[in-house]
Amino acid sequence: MALKRKKISVIGGGFTGATAAFLAAQKELGDVVLVDIPAAENPTKGKALDMWEAAPVQGYDAYVKGTSDYADTADSDVVIITAGVARKPGMSRDDLVQINQKVMISVSEQIAKYSPNAVIIVLTNPVDAMTYTVYKTTGFPKNRVIGQSGVLDTARFRAFIAEELNISVKDITGFVLGGHGDTMVPLTRYSFAGGIPLETLLPADRLEEIVDRTRNGGAEIVNLLGNGSAYYAPAAALIEMAEAILKDQKRILPSVAYLEGEYGYSDLYLGVPTLLGADGIEKIFELELTEKEKSALDVSAEAVRNVMKVLS
Amino acid sequence: MALKRKKISVIGGGFTGATAAFLAAQKELGDVVLVDIPAAENPTKGKALDMWEAAPVQGYDAYVKGTSDYADTADSDVVIITAGVARKPGMSRDDLVQINQKVMISVSEQIAKYSPNAVIIVLTNPVDAMTYTVYKTTGFPKNRVIGQSGVLDTARFRAFIAEELNISVKDITGFVLGGHGDTMVPLTRYSFAGGIPLETLLPADRLEEIVDRTRNGGAEIVNLLGNGSAYYAPAAALIEMAEAILKDQKRILPSVAYLEGEYGYSDLYLGVPTLLGADGIEKIFELELTEKEKSALDVSAEAVRNVMKVLS
Amino acid sequence: MALKRKKISVIGGGFTGATAAFLAAQKELGDVVLVDIPAAENPTKGKALDMWEAAPVQGYDAYVKGTSDYADTADSDVVIITAGVARKPGMSRDDLVQINQKVMISVSEQIAKYSPNAVIIVLTNPVDAMTYTVYKTTGFPKNRVIGQSGVLDTARFRAFIAEELNISVKDITGFVLGGHGDTMVPLTRYSFAGGIPLETLLPADRLEEIVDRTRNGGAEIVNLLGNGSAYYAPAAALIEMAEAILKDQKRILPSVAYLEGEYGYSDLYLGVPTLLGADGIEKIFELELTEKEKSALDVSAEAVRNVMKVLS
Amino acid sequence: MALKRKKISVIGGGFTGATAAFLAAQKELGDVVLVDIPAAENPTKGKALDMWEAAPVQGYDAYVKGTSDYADTADSDVVIITAGVARKPGMSRDDLVQINQKVMISVSEQIAKYSPNAVIIVLTNPVDAMTYTVYKTTGFPKNRVIGQSGVLDTARFRAFIAEELNISVKDITGFVLGGHGDTMVPLTRYSFAGGIPLETLLPADRLEEIVDRTRNGGAEIVNLLGNGSAYYAPAAALIEMAEAILKDQKRILPSVAYLEGEYGYSDLYLGVPTLLGADGIEKIFELELTEKEKSALDVSAEAVRNVMKVLS
Repeated sequence: MALKRKKISVIGGGFTGATAAFLAAQKELGDVVLVDIPAAENPTKGKALDMWEAAPVQGYDAYVKGTSDYADTADSDVVIITAGVARKPGMSRDDLVQINQKVMISVSEQIAKYSPNAVIIVLTNPVDAMTYTVYKTTGFPKNRVIGQSGVLDTARFRAFIAEELNISVKDITGFVLGGHGDTMVPLTRYSFAGGIPLETLLPADRLEEIVDRTRNGGAEIVNLLGNGSAYYAPAAALIEMAEAILKDQKRILPSVAYLEGEYGYSDLYLGVPTLLGADGIEKIFELELTEKEKSALDVSAEAVRNVMKVLS
Repeated sequence: MALKRKKISVIGGGFTGATAAFLAAQKELGDVVLVDIPAAENPTKGKALDMWEAAPVQGYDAYVKGTSDYADTADSDVVIITAGVARKPGMSRDDLVQINQKVMISVSEQIAKYSPNAVIIVLTNPVDAMTYTVYKTTGFPKNRVIGQSGVLDTARFRAFIAEELNISVKDITGFVLGGHGDTMVPLTRYSFAGGIPLETLLPADRLEEIVDRTRNGGAEIVNLLGNGSAYYAPAAALIEMAEAILKDQKRILPSVAYLEGEYGYSDLYLGVPTLLGADGIEKIFELELTEKEKSALDVSAEAVRNVMKVLS
Repeated sequence: MALKRKKISVIGGGFTGATAAFLAAQKELGDVVLVDIPAAENPTKGKALDMWEAAPVQGYDAYVKGTSDYADTADSDVVIITAGVARKPGMSRDDLVQINQKVMISVSEQIAKYSPNAVIIVLTNPVDAMTYTVYKTTGFPKNRVIGQSGVLDTARFRAFIAEELNISVKDITGFVLGGHGDTMVPLTRYSFAGGIPLETLLPADRLEEIVDRTRNGGAEIVNLLGNGSAYYAPAAALIEMAEAILKDQKRILPSVAYLEGEYGYSDLYLGVPTLLGADGIEKIFELELTEKEKSALDVSAEAVRNVMKVLS
Repeated sequence: MALKRKKISVIGGGFTGATAAFLAAQKELGDVVLVDIPAAENPTKGKALDMWEAAPVQGYDAYVKGTSDYADTADSDVVIITAGVARKPGMSRDDLVQINQKVMISVSEQIAKYSPNAVIIVLTNPVDAMTYTVYKTTGFPKNRVIGQSGVLDTARFRAFIAEELNISVKDITGFVLGGHGDTMVPLTRYSFAGGIPLETLLPADRLEEIVDRTRNGGAEIVNLLGNGSAYYAPAAALIEMAEAILKDQKRILPSVAYLEGEYGYSDLYLGVPTLLGADGIEKIFELELTEKEKSALDVSAEAVRNVMKVLS
């Protein structure tokens, strides 16, 4: 049936996954399946039921189901992966990569089995390597395996600028390339308030401070929370990407995309501006970069390759 | 300035409080202040910052501030109280009442000091007694001190019915009176699907099962989560009430209201149908009850009075 | 592609058709095609272009196209028919029926040719007979040919009650059966404010006056406008039905439905409560009626049959 | 009461005024009063009633009242002026200016009398001279008398670019200065798709064609309609400005603002980038212009001064 409801599955029922499920339901993007491991089945069911009980008040017709059985995800249109562990004290980065790689492989096999036509959006860190793993494991075409990174980074940048200038978040735009976090490459010359270049509204050093704060945006939240990491803004970022795909909106959003020559890189997932629509990544935009920007992007690409070396 | 943004403060930065803050921001009801105790100041700031970082993506112009300083709540239009403890294994109900009573008194003094014109909505359990405590402590007129109970109970009822009948949550209405949870008095003869009496769409025993499930709706989530209680639907309920007040919508919603003779009770907070607008509770609707319903309501009122005896 | 945008075509580019197209675009239900006769092609293109130019400000990703070529409607998911003439001074009702019947036949042939899987919603008056004509001409299954009548009638009733009682429109429900306008059968015992029976909130004679005003709701607007008829509320009604179908919402809404024995009538289109989802009318609800209500419904059915006698 | 509903009055009940009223109600910005001259009182009442009857379906709690009595507009927070005549065949531009000047004076006197604290947004053409007239007649501070021009011009530009590139309207930004229409000064170097300069996405001559089409955007619609002018996009533009003010959103939007030295002009209303919030125009942004842009802006300013010479 052409008009049957769409279906979004969210793998990983932690705070980010649950919040993403809730935001998807709120927008009536389709019915939502929240999946976690059998050991977490009851809490996952509890969160999903709580969301469903909010539906009459918030007014959304989107059923939210909690489960540990991938069969419930069958024929999803979009699958969002938030599963995996976060780095804990004493855990090396390499350990993190290897643990999450195993999670990605296991999850990818289930997605490929049950939703062979889905578009997949990956949040799990390190996102570039994890998206690569999902791409290789599922065997899906590259346009249907996408990582999230730049939507969140620019959201943080925009929020900081909006607060600094006391201007609506609706009118601030930002632009980043490259890896998530530390090696993020901000293009401040492509960042505006109501179309006015930020470089004319803020002193260069203040703008640089805000860029730095953005780079460390994840850590800032981790430090404040004391226990756990950000989930509202990451979930919002995931759902903006999912909405663009589910409604074929042809949005220009930064994605972690598989590159085959773009920007001079190949066989690499890296953050670049993309066109998101019904087919996932429908286009990669190549911008002319200054030498300085290209150097920074090279550093970012190199950092991703270093992480990927750890993949088994 | 007549057009300055409205201000909503949420006391208690746990899951329900944080979710309520987020939902208020999403609706652009005004700027939001999320308050917790000094020991929880950093996590509260972290949650608020995370929500603010979601603003550019979700597109809301509502600043969310986390704080432990009540001065930041000054001149709030609506204050929502979610603070307090939940009952833990080994804690008697009376202990719970006395602990939360102290929290209510402390919070109420701060609200009365900083936001003398606010409308207050209380979620903390046992909600009837806690709302009474806030009423007495603040000295606010009764229309500006309101408890939440029935919006959540009917939301759960509606969700269960919608799932049972596979009908849109938008078209299911429910109706409850009395206390929250166990002694809730459902008026199924006032509950409909698209205007059609539920009693004609479902067998009586099945309807009764769903009413029972509703009564135990909070416990069902607690049992599933294993650790913690529901927060999506409770937060949604709080924000529906807050929106009705902030936008002067003249909604008919069930509230825990101070009774002075209505339904035959006095000096008691109990769940009844109310008109919510700019002045808080602008009207209490008195329905003619059957004898059976009135008896059940008496039981409910008696249960509330028993809890109130524990108040010091 | 499963995720391609949905498509809604609106036949008839007058005020109601144009407003319906606009409301559909606002909700991002899909891309919209507004169709009128070749002589009106330019104004239709002008209206559609104006709506498209509003998209960046209103923020909807839904392209609106004006045309006189039915090929542009190909593969629509929902087709809304507002085409036809309104009754003018000196025109007999029978003339009206025959003129609009010809319009329906012509339009239906185009729809059947270009969008054989569409669900059709008919607004053109007299709506019961016109929906019947579309049903017979297209040969579509009955669930996919639906008339609009009761959503508008109840909307008017609800607005009048909301104003009378100064209660939110969100909390007023109404219920009508039978034909549109004069022979509308209101079931006031199934009409509520926040679940409270209207009969307990308003004196019987005042409620009856409001019912009468509802019956003449179309004429009231015609008389005020002096030239033309209502379009905001009719368009909103059409789009609520279309949304229920396009998003498979399982809404209970009154529809003009093809009856095969329901309520004791056969081979007749008449207003009854229905379940609207992806398949169009997925269910007809049969209510037990009082004798008085059944008599009134018989009158209504008879009136429809009298109109249908004029069909050639 | 701090929480009473806001109030928006729309002067002029033609298509643009009526559509603006409808859009304001949809957004629940406040209660809406639609005003026209006594001779048009009934149609105005009819349109308002039709909108109110749509409220239960669209779900907005905003009462819409039609009237010819300015007393009904008392204490409006925002007043939108769409009144005046459009240029007809055989009417000189000077005639148009003088006729609409009289309308503005009459309307302004009523606004000043009944809503002395309102922010006024003017749409009537020629908008720069008409806004000037309202400013002088009301004696309101300059920040509270604003003309609409650039939001509409950029909306058209954005729609044309979105269609040309098949990219979401959400991601296209445009930038114009100066007068409305012919003498509009587009700053294409400040126009982007997802932050990417349009100049890198489109050939220069194609971009120039789209700028030209934008300049003539009003005439394009007039020519298509045959009878009348655009109203969906103009109304959307008005309401975006009104929302920014009513919700104190601190949006950066182009406004027709009173200049006192900015950009080198004084005692002149001209289109410039502004910050819109609770106080109306809270700031004017001065951009560095290229020589070519400054020349074009001089031409635009001169054109406005020429129109203003006709003012009596």
